[in-house]
Amino acid sequence: MKYEVSFINVLKKYDGVKGMSIKKIISCFALLSCILMMTSIMNTANAQDLTTIKLSSPETDKGRPLMQVLNERKSAREYGDKLLTLQDLSNLLWAAYGITREDGRRTAPSAKNVQEFDIYIIIKEGIYRYEPISNELLPVVEGDYRKNAGVQAYVATAPVNLIYVADLGKINWTTDENAKMSIANLDMGFIAENVALFCTSEGLISVPRLGIDKDTLAKILKLRPEQKIILGTTVGYPK
Amino acid sequence: MKYEVSFINVLKKYDGVKGMSIKKIISCFALLSCILMMTSIMNTANAQDLTTIKLSSPETDKGRPLMQVLNERKSAREYGDKLLTLQDLSNLLWAAYGITREDGRRTAPSAKNVQEFDIYIIIKEGIYRYEPISNELLPVVEGDYRKNAGVQAYVATAPVNLIYVADLGKINWTTDENAKMSIANLDMGFIAENVALFCTSEGLISVPRLGIDKDTLAKILKLRPEQKIILGTTVGYPK
Repeated sequence: MKYEVSFINVLKKYDGVKGMSIKKIISCFALLSCILMMTSIMNTANAQDLTTIKLSSPETDKGRPLMQVLNERKSAREYGDKLLTLQDLSNLLWAAYGITREDGRRTAPSAKNVQEFDIYIIIKEGIYRYEPISNELLPVVEGDYRKNAGVQAYVATAPVNLIYVADLGKINWTTDENAKMSIANLDMGFIAENVALFCTSEGLISVPRLGIDKDTLAKILKLRPEQKIILGTTVGYPK
Repeated sequence: MKYEVSFINVLKKYDGVKGMSIKKIISCFALLSCILMMTSIMNTANAQDLTTIKLSSPETDKGRPLMQVLNERKSAREYGDKLLTLQDLSNLLWAAYGITREDGRRTAPSAKNVQEFDIYIIIKEGIYRYEPISNELLPVVEGDYRKNAGVQAYVATAPVNLIYVADLGKINWTTDENAKMSIANLDMGFIAENVALFCTSEGLISVPRLGIDKDTLAKILKLRPEQKIILGTTVGYPK
């Protein structure tokens, strides 16, 4: 919006495009180029602005009774505009795959405890990666990539999309790629169910989704070839 | 134990083996054969005794706060002798994959809501299949098949093993067998995490296990070719 205003001011200064001399038009384009260059520099600055977010400690003592939560768990797709707080995000990510023991074990089990998953968080401001040891969100890329989090329309406007990425290189006791994918999918289910139950407990809504343009998103996330996008969960408050 | 006592009584009646005449020995074996035949008839009667078990309603309102449960979830393998009650089993199976809504939706989601899983319950007395609509355990086969529930030693003596079987025929939107297995494994994780969390909440211990002689167990369960054993969970009270 800021850049649109600047461009309008340039046009006004030169008394409208129709009556301009060649010299004035050249000057106009020179100024415009200058503005565009500054815009570019400012965008670079914004990218640098996407810094590490230190999450507050997760609230590991709360929640509704488990059986009630299981009874009410469901997938939902009508997301409201209300944003998640950083405390919500901290709790959500810890419930999904946080560390619960000194040996580094997580809220979800994994085959041979290899903990092959990373969780990416796609919000309007950019994409982060959850770092459970330091309890931080590490910046990946600045900008609104929510539309790349899934093929469904609601994904592009929902406040949060979690993208789960398995490092198949960690499943190193087999060379069978299909077996690796089966194991990664099994371990995925454990995590995604934690997320679904957490959302139900906290009055959030969510839906686990397989529909993702994985090739495009893998490039945006700068994944290595052995890192595979397995699933996404869209999360938000209800309408 | 009953049969051992009977055999000792036979020997006592004949005043010890050492001093027996041929006639007495023949009589002894005749009586013994008679006892063994009766034992066989009684076992057959037991097989017929493995009838449908109507489960009491699951207690869908109880449980510990979700975040505490997530914090304490872990895999454990030291099982005590204490048996699960039928109410425990009802709650466990409902938490795993019970029906929560009038449209038949479950505590765990499944891809395109195809609900491709059946849960088999292996206990000392025999094997049953969970029927969530009528909330019953349907008899599959009589006898102690716990040793066939997994390759780990503790499996054979733990009170309960759940075996999860996916009907790949229900995943009918792809013909790619590896894709079907990935989907089944993902849906498996949702169910198995419900089980792990339920056990944590209720003071039970559990461990999800991939180590199963699937070919042998599939024959015991009389599975169709498209039915695939995906995982087991061993469940019991701690020592």
